[in-house]
Parts: sequence; C-alpha cells; structure tokens
Amino acid sequence: MAIPNHKVSNGGVSQKVLTLETMNSNIKKVEYAVRGPIVVRAGAIRKELEQGVKKPFTEVISANIGDAHAMGQAPITFLRQVVALCVYPELLKSTEFPDDAKQRARRILGGCGGGSIDTGAYSASQGVELIRNDVANYIEHRDGGLKADPNDIFLCTGASDGVVAMLKLLVSGEGKNRTGAMIPIPQYPLYSATLAELNSTMVPYYLDEDNNWSLDTAELQRALDEGKGACQPRVLCVINPGNPTGQVLSRQNVEEIIKFAKKNNLFLMADEVYQDNVYAEGCAFHSFKKVLHDLGPEYNTSVELASFHSISKGYMGECGFRGGYMETVNLDPKVKEQLRKLVSCRLCPPVTGQAALDIVVNPPKPGEPSYEQFTKEKNNVLGTLAEKAKLTANMFNSIPGVSCNTVQGAMYSFPRITIPDKAIEAAKAKGQTPDDFYAHQLLEETGICVVPGSGFGQRPGTYHFRMTILPPTEKMKSLFVLFRDFHKRFTDQYT
Amino acid sequence: MAIPNHKVSNGGVSQKVLTLETMNSNIKKVEYAVRGPIVVRAGAIRKELEQGVKKPFTEVISANIGDAHAMGQAPITFLRQVVALCVYPELLKSTEFPDDAKQRARRILGGCGGGSIDTGAYSASQGVELIRNDVANYIEHRDGGLKADPNDIFLCTGASDGVVAMLKLLVSGEGKNRTGAMIPIPQYPLYSATLAELNSTMVPYYLDEDNNWSLDTAELQRALDEGKGACQPRVLCVINPGNPTGQVLSRQNVEEIIKFAKKNNLFLMADEVYQDNVYAEGCAFHSFKKVLHDLGPEYNTSVELASFHSISKGYMGECGFRGGYMETVNLDPKVKEQLRKLVSCRLCPPVTGQAALDIVVNPPKPGEPSYEQFTKEKNNVLGTLAEKAKLTANMFNSIPGVSCNTVQGAMYSFPRITIPDKAIEAAKAKGQTPDDFYAHQLLEETGICVVPGSGFGQRPGTYHFRMTILPPTEKMKSLFVLFRDFHKRFTDQYT
Repeated sequence: MAIPNHKVSNGGVSQKVLTLETMNSNIKKVEYAVRGPIVVRAGAIRKELEQGVKKPFTEVISANIGDAHAMGQAPITFLRQVVALCVYPELLKSTEFPDDAKQRARRILGGCGGGSIDTGAYSASQGVELIRNDVANYIEHRDGGLKADPNDIFLCTGASDGVVAMLKLLVSGEGKNRTGAMIPIPQYPLYSATLAELNSTMVPYYLDEDNNWSLDTAELQRALDEGKGACQPRVLCVINPGNPTGQVLSRQNVEEIIKFAKKNNLFLMADEVYQDNVYAEGCAFHSFKKVLHDLGPEYNTSVELASFHSISKGYMGECGFRGGYMETVNLDPKVKEQLRKLVSCRLCPPVTGQAALDIVVNPPKPGEPSYEQFTKEKNNVLGTLAEKAKLTANMFNSIPGVSCNTVQGAMYSFPRITIPDKAIEAAKAKGQTPDDFYAHQLLEETGICVVPGSGFGQRPGTYHFRMTILPPTEKMKSLFVLFRDFHKRFTDQYT
Repeated sequence: MAIPNHKVSNGGVSQKVLTLETMNSNIKKVEYAVRGPIVVRAGAIRKELEQGVKKPFTEVISANIGDAHAMGQAPITFLRQVVALCVYPELLKSTEFPDDAKQRARRILGGCGGGSIDTGAYSASQGVELIRNDVANYIEHRDGGLKADPNDIFLCTGASDGVVAMLKLLVSGEGKNRTGAMIPIPQYPLYSATLAELNSTMVPYYLDEDNNWSLDTAELQRALDEGKGACQPRVLCVINPGNPTGQVLSRQNVEEIIKFAKKNNLFLMADEVYQDNVYAEGCAFHSFKKVLHDLGPEYNTSVELASFHSISKGYMGECGFRGGYMETVNLDPKVKEQLRKLVSCRLCPPVTGQAALDIVVNPPKPGEPSYEQFTKEKNNVLGTLAEKAKLTANMFNSIPGVSCNTVQGAMYSFPRITIPDKAIEAAKAKGQTPDDFYAHQLLEETGICVVPGSGFGQRPGTYHFRMTILPPTEKMKSLFVLFRDFHKRFTDQYT
C-alpha cells in the first residue's frame, strides 16, 4: 500500500498525521454489524422520542444484541450478592446477606491472595487460581467426569477476549501461506472482524438453512478446497449453539466435524458460549471436548481445541462484567507459554467478572440457604427463553413471505424474508443492501431494532435479519403484531 | 517467513497445527518483564515458603508491579460503597450506606440506561455517556476550565486498552514505510510489547539519567534521524510522570516536546496515568492537552494527541476493576469513527470499572456526608507515598555502588547499580543479562522481587532495576536493610 507522504503540507494547510488514508488499512476493513449504523440510528431515535418527537411508535425495542439485562431480565440474586460482598468486604458484617453468599465471598477473597487482598488488586494474568480450579471442576462435571486441568483454563475479559487471543496466535505466514480460518456463514461477526484486523483470510462455509442450519461436512470440504487457493486454512471455527442461527449440533455432527479437523490438520475453535441455552426437545449440548475424548486416542491425543464460554449469556446474562474463560486441549506446551506471556501484557481480566464467573461455575448446592432461590431464578429465565424461542419461530412462520427455522438454542432467530424486486432496486438506489434497507425501514416505522443478515453473511440472493428472543414475552407478542403489519405494508408497497 | 508444511506428518507421528514454528512470529517477539520469569519464580518461592521450605527470609516482597492493594493499601471506602450499590441495587434500601453513596449509585444506574438496567448490561462501546460527561468535567477542572468534549472520551479496560487501540490505528505501511513509534528508554514495556505484536518499529530515545531522567529534545532529534532509516516515525510516546523512572516533566519540557511533535509531524501519545502521583517539591503535573492549548492556534488546532488515564494508579489503585479512559485531541473525525467501530467489536469496557472511574473523576464534594472520610483516605495514601518516595532515594543513595534519582512522581524508583565484572561474567555463563542475574540473586537471597532494568531498556553498560514504592513504610525500611546487606555481599562475592 502506498502511504501518502504526510510530511508534505497541503498548500500551507497542515495535514493530519492520522487520516483515513494513513491509518491501518486492516482496521478499515473491520465490520461489526451488531453495533453498526442501525444501532446508532436506534439510539438517535430513542433520544428523539425522549425529546417528544412524534413517531408511529412510542418506544425502541432493542432486539439487536444478546443483552438480557438491557431487556429487563433481573439479575441472579446470589451472584450479585457475592460480587457486592467481594467489592465491599465491610458487608461481610451485615445481617442482610445469607451465610452462603458470605462464605463464597470470603472464599473468593481468600483466593485472590490472602485476606488483605481483594478485587482491587491485579489477579494472576491467567485468572485467579481458585476460580480456575472451580472452572475445571465445572467442566469435569459437565463432561461426565472427564478430567479438566486448571492450567489449561484462561479466564478472559468476555469470551471475545479469548477468541481474539487464540486467533492472534494462529495467524502467521504471508500471501498464500497466510493462515486462513474456516468460519460459518451466517457467523457472529467477531470472527470476520478479528480476521480482518489480523489481515487473515476468512474461509466461509455455509450452514444449511434447509436443514435447520445444520453443518454439513461436504460443505466444509468444498469450502476448504476453495480456500486453499487463497490461503493456508489452519483453523476451523464452530459456533454451537449457533449465533445468529440458533441451531444445536447433534453429537453425530460434532464427531464428523472433529474427524474433518483431524483429517485436514485444522485447529478447532469451539464457541460454546450458549451451552446453557438449549430449548428444543430432543436437543442437547455436546461439548467438543467430551466428544473429542470419546473418539479415542486416535483423536483425543492430537486434535487441538480451544473452547470458549462466557458469563454474558446462559441464564445469568451478565454482559457488563466482561467475564468468560477459554479451555485449551492438546495445546503445545510451548505455545501455552506464549499464550500466558501474551495475556500478561494486559495484566488480568476484570476481577469482578472473575468473581461472577466463579458463581456460574460453582452455584449454590442443595441444602445451602440460597439454593432454592437461585434454582428458581435460573429455571425461570431458561423457561421463559424456551417459550420465547418457540413463540418466535411460530410467529414468523405464520407470516406470508417469512420463514424461520426452529430456535433450538442460543438467543436469536434468523428468519428469512422475501424482499420484492422493487424494494431491492430502491435499496440499490440508496446504496444499501436489500436487508439493510428493510431493517432500517422496520426501525423507522415500528421502533424494532434488528441486525440485517448481511452483517452475519448469508447465501447470495437470500435475505435475513437477526432478532434476539430477549424482550419480555408480552413485548415480544406486541412486537410480532407490529412486525406482521410492517412486513405486509412493505411487501405491498414494493410489489 | 517460511512456514513448515504442517500437513506432512512426521514419520507417522502427527504434528501439531500450532507450534512455536508455525505460530504468529510477532507474538514470539513480545516481552513483558513486569510479569516475566522473575515474577513466576517469586510465585514459586512463595508457595515453597507456604509448604515450609526453609529460606534465608520468611516472605516474598512483591515490589515488581504497581499494584497498591496487593501491597496492603486499603481501598477508598466511598468508591467501593458506590460500586457495591451498583452491583447489588437491593442495598439501596440498606441503612448501612451513607446517603451520598446511594445518590451516586442511583445516578450511575440511571445513566446506564434507565432504572431497570444495571451493571449487568453492556454499556455503549465508548462507555456510559453520563460517565464520559463526568470525565469531561473532570478534565475541564484539571485544565483550568479548558473545554473537554465527552465525544472525545473513550472509556477503556484499563489505560493499556486505550494505548493498544490507538497504536493499532496508527500502524500502517510496509518495510521502511512501516510506522515507527518513538518510545522513551527506559519505558513501560506495554509499548515495546504492542509494537512487537503489530510488527512495528520502536524508535528509542533515551531519558537523561544524569538530569533526573529528563527528556531532551536534542536526543529526540537524534533518535528521529536514526529511526528514519528503518521506518516512518509517526508517533511520539511520552510517559509523564515517568514509568519506571519517576520523573515529572516541567511545563517548559512539555512545550518543547509538543513543538518537536508539530515540527516533525508526530502523533503524540501521552501516558498520564500517574497524574495524581506527584510528590517532589517544586514539581507539578502539566497535562499535554493544557500546554498544547496554551501554545496557541499554531499548535492547538493541529497537533494530534491521545492522553491516557487509569483507575489503577493515583490514590485509588483500583487495578482489579480494569478501568481507565483515553481523551483524543484534534483527531480526524473520520478516524474517530473508525476508532468507535474498532472498540465496538469488544462490546464495552467492564461496567464496574466504569462505575469506579466515575467516583475518581467525580469525588465527594465539601458538605457531602462522605467528603471528610474520602479526603482523609486520599490524603493519607498520597502522603504516605510521598514519604516513601523520599525514603527510597535517600536509602538507595546511602549505599555504595547504588545511585537513585529523586522519585518526583509515579510509583517506582529505578536505581542504578554497579555490577562487578566477575558478576557480569557469571551472568554471561548462565545466559542471563547482568541485571537479570542480579535481580534473581536478590530474590533468592532476600525475597525481594524487583524487575531487572533490561525489561524496560537502559543505556548499554548501565544496570538498573525497577522497584515500587508501594510496600508499607515499615516493610520498606526492613527491605532496605536486607537490600543493603545483599548488595554488599554481592559486590564482595564478585570483586
């Protein structure tokens, strides 16, 4: 790339050092639709409403992002109690907290390095050892007793932090030797954004919309073969349960993917942040680690895997704390040292997020004072999400020109919409993609904020959007009334 | 770089995808001494002591990292009260909190987007607007009323996060056109680590140890001229107050630096995280932004600046929360949009850290219930640090073979040590730098953990280490007794 000579002033007018022309061109390529222009516009509309501007609606419904608390979901009491106690240990003297919350807080504070040290000190870069031990126990329990090593656990500033760290390690080489990463389409755009930043190549494989967004290894093979012309594909990213697509992989499917990775020397990255969000009957979460183990020594001693989890999703939805973890399997010990060094430059993940994670992986046990309330709150959230997942597909499928796969898990639907040719032309005239045009019009007419499918990727000629299942049930119901009317109006207008 | 063909199995033995050979070579070059091998060794020694292993000392003194709470500094009560209330708003009903803490928590929770939303939701990517407003007011007050725009404020996951984001934007071009960044030597190793990761060139300029680590523009010019052969220097990083060197720049010096940046088309990055840590008489903190403004329109409409601040330092020392901010000045609006997009990919900084930052920039005011206690706690911390800064230089300078500049600010001393030739040979034989050899021996014999000067950079042939002024005063005093004896023993042993 030619860099304009920034030392020459422009006819006496001083030119800036940092401009669109001189800045890092990889960053320019980054796109992140989940917080893109439509969300900025939604924020502006919300302000207009506050200022009394008249609209055909009275509120903006933010169905664009997996942010449960922003949609009114109440926090899990026990988790917040423990974190508050860790933040302000004077409260350990208070009578307003149950004993088990206090006991947990004391334990976490002790783990931070002795009674005098608290959430205000840096933790170890890899995370508090006691919490990593608890994470390892949690994983062992999840995977039917399969051993987890706390040294393989890296606590992170949200799962995103772990995904980025792992991709950073994996990207190397130049030109056609540059690392390529196989990414599902539709995908969560953190992957494409990070690969753009790292100047790495995305090797897209399509999920099969006609089979409830399932993952077909023949399609993986096609994508791999095609990718090899442009780069060196070395990474296979899988999101299970799917974001934005909401499918849950069968055990059989996970096995096939692992075999494919082994055969083609691919490093597996398993984004499993929705592992607690499985709703559909007959579906269950199968961790890549467990299935890998069960495939026997031909696989479980060689296939390299990084799995990611987060406190932002599940039943707790604690997005603001920025907590999560990554578990590595079969990672080269010398690379693990490099990973430790890399994360140490940013000192440590937020300690309050680590404390919150500890409660997620080590919840109250039967017989403890907070067990009942905790369980009730958890089941309530997950039960409501399951209802709304069902409601969502049913409602979309009842609208002519809209079809939606079963939302088996995660927090999103990704319905397909028919956009009339005239609307496609109108979009083109405005320099927008048809789905972007559609989503903007939906926002302007109804206040419903969704993310256009093009922000996640979709088969050419198909149009979708991602909508969360997080608004409260009653709001979801009125949302669908608004949406149905809008879609009909839109279709009539452009037909 | 040639990438070994990882698809070839090695005599039937499956080879890993990700190895030291195939991984990102930039990451391999990253070094971060503050949490390097000596700190790992200190942790191991601490465990040995716990297990009853006999040592010539009974405890490890971690003087390696600017982590006040880990050294026993008590948190600021009001700050923790407000954050605890934000984490668990049920406490707003409690009688155990002062009214002003509750009022602050309500205000912050309101700013997070209405009463129903709390610290569990993502904030805006740039940070909660209300908190950015408070940061802007704080900066205006600091700079004698000079306007600060909340849209120029980016809240961060610690100052490191802001520094990395800004360097990412600035690095572009290939080969000799690749961006170079001027970095002080000695430096805080986040800078060298980030530039290594970004495959960018460090253009080192030396601070003048003979003049209390002052910054000489003739040396800047020498470094710039030399750097131009290898890269395109476009960034000038300044750390004021200095880390690891503890100097505080005079206003005159800041002016000269700004003029140098203007003349040479350099983007200024001002690491001002120690702005509240100024101890020496006659010294004052002069923000780059204020001095830039005062230089008049020739400078203040053109010189681009990013300034960084943190809640991990100052009097609060809240490292674990990972909070901080960056303010940009004269940043191209289109670049600012790119920066906003970039930070949105990681969703938001931890909201508890944002809440803690709000208290730092908006502390209790005279007449409010918590004002007196807050002020007492703050002054107590800063007063003790000032004492220990003085004590440190005095003690080091009383030891033959050791010299130490005045610790005018920040949290560190960077004493120079004489290492005998025989010790230099002994170090060489062990494959260590002389200062690394020295620091390891200091740790093994006394339990004192410091960071070797080579981790920060130093003039060839000189040897230093960085030691924090954070251990409690009594511990500092006994540390100096241990250190004095050690240094004499070491010198005798190798002379």
